[in-house]
Amino acid sequence: MPTTTAVRELPHPSREEIRLEAVLHALADPVRLRIITVLNTHGEGEGNGATCSQVELPVSTSTATHHFRVLREAGVINQCYRGTSKINCLRRADLEARFPGLLDAVLRAAAN
Amino acid sequence: MPTTTAVRELPHPSREEIRLEAVLHALADPVRLRIITVLNTHGEGEGNGATCSQVELPVSTSTATHHFRVLREAGVINQCYRGTSKINCLRRADLEARFPGLLDAVLRAAAN
Repeated sequence: MPTTTAVRELPHPSREEIRLEAVLHALADPVRLRIITVLNTHGEGEGNGATCSQVELPVSTSTATHHFRVLREAGVINQCYRGTSKINCLRRADLEARFPGLLDAVLRAAAN
Repeated sequence: MPTTTAVRELPHPSREEIRLEAVLHALADPVRLRIITVLNTHGEGEGNGATCSQVELPVSTSTATHHFRVLREAGVINQCYRGTSKINCLRRADLEARFPGLLDAVLRAAAN
């Protein structure tokens, strides 16, 4: 009898569903700017990304979880489970396709 | 006896006081994106800019006034009186100096 592996998938907007206002709102927060700045130093795709605890933030775990969720729901980051860890990646290709130059302009601005 | 002309000046952040989070928050709204899109078609400086009523918006006058104020307080637009009219201009040079490429990336994204 085959075993069933429960795959926990979190909801993400498709590339076409990503809205500019939602992305700008998601980025309009110092903690969330910090998150995307750190994720920008990690790669995307299989084997890359960062766990939530790899992103050092000056807030509680539950507050951090909220901020990651806002970014995911806006389409800024992808969150997926790898084993029991939640891995976070920037959705660079999707954002660049929808809003060329925006993510890099925000990352540059946040770095100053 | 000299007459005194009352000059009504509205508060604006200086270039150095403009904060990324405040700018992103100000832009994270469809009405405010519409405002900056229209202002982008008007020039800046003496004799340019647009009155609030020149920017057609699907909201009441008082709501529109609120949206212009959010943009001004964030440092996205300049509002000054010319006679009895309030004239609005994008603070393109200030935004470009602080956050290179950001305004244009948002304007391009809002145009799609």
